Amino acid sequence: MNDMDENTKNNEFINHLGLEMIEESSKYAKGRIPVKAELLNPFGTMHGGVLYSLADIVAGIAAQASGNRCVTLSGSLNFLLPGTDTKYIYCEAFLERMGKHTAVYRVEIKDDEGKLLDTGTFTYFAI
Amino acid sequence: MNDMDENTKNNEFINHLGLEMIEESSKYAKGRIPVKAELLNPFGTMHGGVLYSLADIVAGIAAQASGNRCVTLSGSLNFLLPGTDTKYIYCEAFLERMGKHTAVYRVEIKDDEGKLLDTGTFTYFAI
Amino acid sequence: MNDMDENTKNNEFINHLGLEMIEESSKYAKGRIPVKAELLNPFGTMHGGVLYSLADIVAGIAAQASGNRCVTLSGSLNFLLPGTDTKYIYCEAFLERMGKHTAVYRVEIKDDEGKLLDTGTFTYFAI
Amino acid sequence: MNDMDENTKNNEFINHLGLEMIEESSKYAKGRIPVKAELLNPFGTMHGGVLYSLADIVAGIAAQASGNRCVTLSGSLNFLLPGTDTKYIYCEAFLERMGKHTAVYRVEIKDDEGKLLDTGTFTYFAI
Repeated sequence: MNDMDENTKNNEFINHLGLEMIEESSKYAKGRIPVKAELLNPFGTMHGGVLYSLADIVAGIAAQASGNRCVTLSGSLNFLLPGTDTKYIYCEAFLERMGKHTAVYRVEIKDDEGKLLDTGTFTYFAI
Repeated sequence: MNDMDENTKNNEFINHLGLEMIEESSKYAKGRIPVKAELLNPFGTMHGGVLYSLADIVAGIAAQASGNRCVTLSGSLNFLLPGTDTKYIYCEAFLERMGKHTAVYRVEIKDDEGKLLDTGTFTYFAI
Repeated sequence: MNDMDENTKNNEFINHLGLEMIEESSKYAKGRIPVKAELLNPFGTMHGGVLYSLADIVAGIAAQASGNRCVTLSGSLNFLLPGTDTKYIYCEAFLERMGKHTAVYRVEIKDDEGKLLDTGTFTYFAI
Repeated sequence: MNDMDENTKNNEFINHLGLEMIEESSKYAKGRIPVKAELLNPFGTMHGGVLYSLADIVAGIAAQASGNRCVTLSGSLNFLLPGTDTKYIYCEAFLERMGKHTAVYRVEIKDDEGKLLDTGTFTYFAI
């Protein structure tokens, strides 16, 4: 369930999120994080910054699956619905374009039932 | 230095970031977080998700300064430069539009020297 | 092939683009414009502003299909591939969220063969 | 008032918009288009697609001012206020980051009085 390289594996911030990767390839990646107190916003649902972190990490793992070291150029997220009554938050990254230097991924964030909570786009640059 | 309401003050995720607010109004807000090991990405600079969290929180505090309870509709961030050799990461939120239901903020993230690291836009909906 | 209201039908800018609507509902809309000299960029492919116009119009028609008068709050487009060797440029708008006040659509722009050229998100506000 | 290269000058779509460039450099560019019937939306104000076209062209001219041939990677626009009672719509592009391969510009669209109507970000790739 985990092919992230050593650096990524030992990253404290990612550990704090509790990320588990489920699938990893340059065309598609999927991961999840558990809903837990230390990641909630004042409304009691997962913090937008946590969801963005999840999306950036999952799409970034996809971008690096092709063997390139990648940095995030930009990323956006649309918050459609808050995730309530869910144990995990899932994120899938779908490759939209793999160029020589840049890769674009669409991300979809869902709850345990597969309900769409957030969507966004992340762009990476291969360094 | 801190006018966030009780809910926001006691939020674990915000505490983990180490957020300190410097200025808070509906037209402009400024906050900062210290650079520390548990917030870094595998490259050794602040994680993009941490920067997004900072931006969403600072702009969200501005949006709520007018007395409305607000949720984030969408937010994007452009990663211009990594922040190196800086003790803190600062975020400023500038009001671009305050409508009856929606508020739009531009965010600028800078290092100790005031060098521009990231820019973005966050949109809030008053509920 | 055309259910746009009179206002939209007689709009000069939309006529200049040569828009034809293929499907119109609040959940999904599809339209196309012909590739023609007056819409090209200096590289000889459809101008980004034309593609954005197409996307905004098609998603806007979807947003208004529910009976609300809508204005665009924001819209973004990722230019994945230029459209070459295609007679028409097609745009589909997929509803991602229909709230009480705001509607979010994902747009996909494709060529005659169905190849994905551009993707984006448009958000509307019901007035 | 016009340093666009021959290709850009003779572009039919840009001519249809009536673009006039006021300032052109890689750090900053400014242009304007007249408000005219063929560019209006069904509400009687400038079409969002026209505003986006203006922004993409002005920022693109800035991106190319450094001598590189550039294509647009992505662009977004926030529609803050409709432009009413204005003869021209002005667009300014401010350089946020010039990398080896990518350039990021913030755009601001204003009316005759300098009132801020729209803001956005455009990213270019030097080919």
